Amino acid sequence: MFHKILIANRGEIAVRIIRACREMGIETVAIYSEADKEALHTQLADEAICIGKATAKDSYLDIKRIISAAIITGANAIHPGFGFLSENSHFSSVCEECNITFIGPTGDMMDKMGNKSQARETMIAHHIPVVPGSEGAVSHVEEGLEVAASIGYPVIIKASAGGGGRGMRIARNSDELVHSFETASSEARNAFGDDTMYIEKYVENPRHIEFQILADNYGNTVHLGERDCSMQRRHQKVLEESPSAAIDDELRTAMGDAAVKAAKAIQYRNAGTVEFLLSASGEFYFIEMNTRIQVEHPVTEMVTGIDLIKEQIRIAYGEPLGYTQEDVKIQGHAIECRINAEDPSKGFRPSPGMIDFLHMPSGKDIRVDSAIYAGYSIPPYYDSMIAKLIVFDENREKAIAKLNSAVGEFIVKGIKTNLDFQYTLINHPKFVKGEYDTSFIEKSMVL
Amino acid sequence: MFHKILIANRGEIAVRIIRACREMGIETVAIYSEADKEALHTQLADEAICIGKATAKDSYLDIKRIISAAIITGANAIHPGFGFLSENSHFSSVCEECNITFIGPTGDMMDKMGNKSQARETMIAHHIPVVPGSEGAVSHVEEGLEVAASIGYPVIIKASAGGGGRGMRIARNSDELVHSFETASSEARNAFGDDTMYIEKYVENPRHIEFQILADNYGNTVHLGERDCSMQRRHQKVLEESPSAAIDDELRTAMGDAAVKAAKAIQYRNAGTVEFLLSASGEFYFIEMNTRIQVEHPVTEMVTGIDLIKEQIRIAYGEPLGYTQEDVKIQGHAIECRINAEDPSKGFRPSPGMIDFLHMPSGKDIRVDSAIYAGYSIPPYYDSMIAKLIVFDENREKAIAKLNSAVGEFIVKGIKTNLDFQYTLINHPKFVKGEYDTSFIEKSMVL
Repeated sequence: MFHKILIANRGEIAVRIIRACREMGIETVAIYSEADKEALHTQLADEAICIGKATAKDSYLDIKRIISAAIITGANAIHPGFGFLSENSHFSSVCEECNITFIGPTGDMMDKMGNKSQARETMIAHHIPVVPGSEGAVSHVEEGLEVAASIGYPVIIKASAGGGGRGMRIARNSDELVHSFETASSEARNAFGDDTMYIEKYVENPRHIEFQILADNYGNTVHLGERDCSMQRRHQKVLEESPSAAIDDELRTAMGDAAVKAAKAIQYRNAGTVEFLLSASGEFYFIEMNTRIQVEHPVTEMVTGIDLIKEQIRIAYGEPLGYTQEDVKIQGHAIECRINAEDPSKGFRPSPGMIDFLHMPSGKDIRVDSAIYAGYSIPPYYDSMIAKLIVFDENREKAIAKLNSAVGEFIVKGIKTNLDFQYTLINHPKFVKGEYDTSFIEKSMVL
Repeated sequence: MFHKILIANRGEIAVRIIRACREMGIETVAIYSEADKEALHTQLADEAICIGKATAKDSYLDIKRIISAAIITGANAIHPGFGFLSENSHFSSVCEECNITFIGPTGDMMDKMGNKSQARETMIAHHIPVVPGSEGAVSHVEEGLEVAASIGYPVIIKASAGGGGRGMRIARNSDELVHSFETASSEARNAFGDDTMYIEKYVENPRHIEFQILADNYGNTVHLGERDCSMQRRHQKVLEESPSAAIDDELRTAMGDAAVKAAKAIQYRNAGTVEFLLSASGEFYFIEMNTRIQVEHPVTEMVTGIDLIKEQIRIAYGEPLGYTQEDVKIQGHAIECRINAEDPSKGFRPSPGMIDFLHMPSGKDIRVDSAIYAGYSIPPYYDSMIAKLIVFDENREKAIAKLNSAVGEFIVKGIKTNLDFQYTLINHPKFVKGEYDTSFIEKSMVL
C-alpha cells in the first residue's frame, strides 16, 4: 500500500481523507495556504506544508507547488478531494509524469467526461439516454434557433466547460434564446476562457438523481445506488438523500445499469458519479459524469457500508474491487444536510469569522464531517460549507426524525449559518412526503 | 407513546436519552444540581429543573425532589439512566405509586437480582451455571477442606460480611486452605465482628463477558450478543468490545441461551445485562444481572443496529418487541473506550476543571457519546467519565485501526485525561491479538 499520501485540498474533505489514511496506516501530508495555518486539516496530518497565499490560485490551485510539496515529503500519491484540481486533467497527467499516483482517473478519462459534448456523443453511441439537443457545439445564435425549433422549447443553453450554474440559461421562446445565448457565451468566456456552447431540451422540474459508481483497473465496475440531490438552491445542492423517494427497484436497476455502462464506455476507473435528470413522468437522461469524489458521498457510505475514500485509495493502488454488483446491499435511509457559514436573511451571503461556541450532535447513526472547532476562525477565501450533517435510520421517516433532532441540537455561535433554513426545509410537508424536485426551494421556501 | 419523559440522570447518558426522546417525538425534562446549571443535558432538554445542591444525595439521589419535578412538569415516565437511582427498587415502586412509568423493571425484579445469594439460588434452580462453591456458610476448616476437595482447587475463601479484599484469601491446595481459612476468619472477626465464611471455586484470570438482553411485557426475551468487558482497572471497565475475541458461535449460543433463561427466571422486563465469568478453558458462570442500561450499551447498538434506549422506552410503554432471536443479526465489530477526566500519572486521580480546547473525532462509523464542550467546566462531584468513543468496522482488526486513528485525533486541553493510557492499551500486542483477561491491566500495563 502507499506509504504516504498528500492531500491537495482543505476543509472537511481533507480531514475526511486524512481519517481514511490514518485508519489504513498511511502517512499524510497536508498542504495549506497562509490563511489555513490554524485549519484542522493542517493540524491533523502527519506533516503540513504551507504552499502559498490565501487565494486559491496561489496555493490550492498551484500545481507546481503541490507537486514540489509531494516530492519534498516523499509522498507516493495525491488525493485531490473535490473542487480545486480534482477534475483538472493536466494535474492528473503531471502527477503521473512525476511518478506520483493521482488518486482518481487518468487525465484522458477526465477529458472524455469533462468535455460535455464529447461525453454526450459517447453516451449516444452507447445507447444511454441523453436530453435531446444539439449534436455537438452550437457556434452561433442562428444555429441555436434551428436546434431549439427542432427539439421544442423550453431549452437550456449550456457552456461546454461550465459548472455551478455559470454559463447556463433557460430560454422559453426564440426571443429569450437570442438574448440568453449571448449572455451565457460571454459568461462562459469570462469564467472558463471557453465559450463553446450547446443547447438541450429543458426538462422542467426534474429530479436530480446521481449514481455512485466504483471501477477498478481490471474492468470491474459496480454502482452503489442513487443519491437524490434535487434539493438545490441556485444549482447548489443543499440536502441529499439515498435512496430517492422517487425511485423504485425497477427504475434503480435501469438507471444503475446505465450508470455502469456510462463508466465502462470510457474504461473509467476509480470513484465517479453519473448524474441524471429524472422527469416527472419517469424518463431519465444522462447529464454528466463527475470524475471525482462528491461532497455528498457519505449518504452512499451510510446505506452501503462501503468507505468510498478507502476504495479510491485501494483502486488507485491497483487493488481489484473484490466484490460484484450482487454483493452491494443497500439498507436503510441516509440524509445529508450541508451546513454553511452564510446568512439566509441576507441572500445567503457568506458569513466567515470566529466560531465562539460550538456543539455538534453525535450519537447513534449521526455523523458530522467537518473541519471546524470552537475558537476557529473561518477564512473568507473559500467555500462557505463548514460541516456536513449525515444521519442514518432504518427508513426515511425515521431518518427525517433523527435529522430533526440533530439539526435542532447543532449550535454554532459567532457566525451566521443556514441551520434554521435547513430546519424549516426538512419540516416542509413536501419534503416530508418526498415530493420535491429541483425547483422546490425556489418555489416553496420563503427566503 | 409517552408525551414527556423526565431523565433522572446527568452527563452523557442523560444526553443520550434526550436524543432518543427527540427522535421519537417525546418531550424531555432534565433535572440538574446547582453544579450542573451549564451542563449539556440541562441545555438540551425541553425543560430543566434545578432540584438541589451539587452533592448527589441532595439532588440526583433525592427521590422526593425527582418525583415532584416529574409531577410539576407533567412527565408520564422517568428514565433513570445508569448509576444514581437506576437500581433502587424503592424508586421504581414510588414511581409506579405516583402513576409515573419507571423505564426499567419493577422493584420486585430488581430485588430478586440485587440480592446476590437469592439470585444465585434462582440460577441454580434454573440450571444456569454459577461458580461452584459451598451451599451456605462453612463453619470450620474441616468442612472447608471437604468443600474444596469436591469443587477442586484453587478456591477462594470469602467472609460473608467482607468487602475491599478483607477476609478474602486464595488457596491452591489443602495446606494453603488450612492456613488461609484461619487467617481469613480471624481477619473477618476483627474487621467485621462476623466470621461467617464461604468457599467458592477461584476462576483464574477470567474474561468478563456480559450478554445484553431485551424483554417485553409479554414474555418475549432476546439476547443481542455479548460484550467483552475484561479490560478493567480495579474492577472498573476501561474498554469494551463486541463480539468477544474469546467466543465462537457455539459458545455464544450457549451463553446467550443461559442469559435469556436467567432473565425469564424472574419474568424480567426491559433492557438488562447478564454478567458471566468465562474461564480460560471455556467454562462460564453467572455472576450477576444488572437491571438497567449499561455504560457500554453502544457497542451492542453498533453490531446489531438496535437502539437500546428507544427499545427501553417502547417496552416501558407496553409495546411488544416485534422481533425474535432469529431476527437479531450481529455484524462487524465495535469497540468502546471510556474517556475519563483523570490523571494516570497520579494514580488516575480525577482531574475536573475547565476544558479550554476540544476536538472530538467524527466520521464514518465513529461515534462519541459525551456531554462536554469547549468552555465547559467539569464539576468535581460526579463520575470522571467525560466521553465514550465508539468505533465500528467490518472486523476486529479494522475496528482497532479505526480506534487508533480516533483516539489519536481526540484532543482535550485544560484537564488531564486517560487518552494516552487508552492509546497505549489499544496498541499493546496482547490487546491487538485479543488475548487478555481481567488481570491484563494490572499485569501488563506499566502505570
